[in-house]
Amino acid sequence: MANGFWHSFTLALGVVVVLPAHAHEPAPAQAKKAIRKVLDDQVIAWNKGDLRGFMDGYWQSPDLSFFSGKNKTKGWQATLDRYRKKYRGEGKEMGKLTFSELDVTLLGSGHALVRGRWQLALAKDNPSGLFTLIFQKLPAGWRIVHDHTSN
Amino acid sequence: MANGFWHSFTLALGVVVVLPAHAHEPAPAQAKKAIRKVLDDQVIAWNKGDLRGFMDGYWQSPDLSFFSGKNKTKGWQATLDRYRKKYRGEGKEMGKLTFSELDVTLLGSGHALVRGRWQLALAKDNPSGLFTLIFQKLPAGWRIVHDHTSN
Repeated sequence: MANGFWHSFTLALGVVVVLPAHAHEPAPAQAKKAIRKVLDDQVIAWNKGDLRGFMDGYWQSPDLSFFSGKNKTKGWQATLDRYRKKYRGEGKEMGKLTFSELDVTLLGSGHALVRGRWQLALAKDNPSGLFTLIFQKLPAGWRIVHDHTSN
Repeated sequence: MANGFWHSFTLALGVVVVLPAHAHEPAPAQAKKAIRKVLDDQVIAWNKGDLRGFMDGYWQSPDLSFFSGKNKTKGWQATLDRYRKKYRGEGKEMGKLTFSELDVTLLGSGHALVRGRWQLALAKDNPSGLFTLIFQKLPAGWRIVHDHTSN
């Protein structure tokens, strides 16, 4: 009995050791890190001129919602089309994107509110503004399901 | 034994009967109704010129956050001050407020995302725009903890 106990105990320790490093972090810290990675990846993609890669941060669904100023865009494809028209059209440029003042707040275990400021360095202009994002934990990972941006 | 069973059964039925009518609704429907009432009450208060009553819809906390255009306001008091300056200052008017295209989406059991359009009928202007609200279920009831508005 005593031997059996120590044998199980050793096995249990062994299991802990082989788990990846991030498994030691509490779930909320892991979620926040995953969400920040989605945003970091969006900025990297944008600054490579990779609009399709940037769009990977968004829920690929007809129910994605995107608010800008007084305009609503519904759906992933329509949101991509809007970005294309605005930043890849004739005489347009994507410039260099920066996010700052980021605040990630988990709302329960399946959603998060992300607030921040965006800035775009273009050849002749430096537009900037605020954004509110709602992230949802989906089978594919954390994705933006609603984006409200203003300037 | 049989008598005891029926006695308990009758008591149980009695308990159901005395519950208020809305208890028959599922919790999400109750939450959505409570949230819509907060918004309805805000509109009623605004249109009576009752800015303080309008502010009851917001979380009365230094952590309330309010985004408008590219400006951030932090805290309930600062948000009230901003509204006062913008709508109750010299030569300003509150006008008639309308919310439309309202969409209430529950995020887990403790939070909700509310999207909609606002319109203000003023003497010489009809400003309008979109809003994204995050509601949280607090001891005082459902309250707006973050507001992003744009036009």
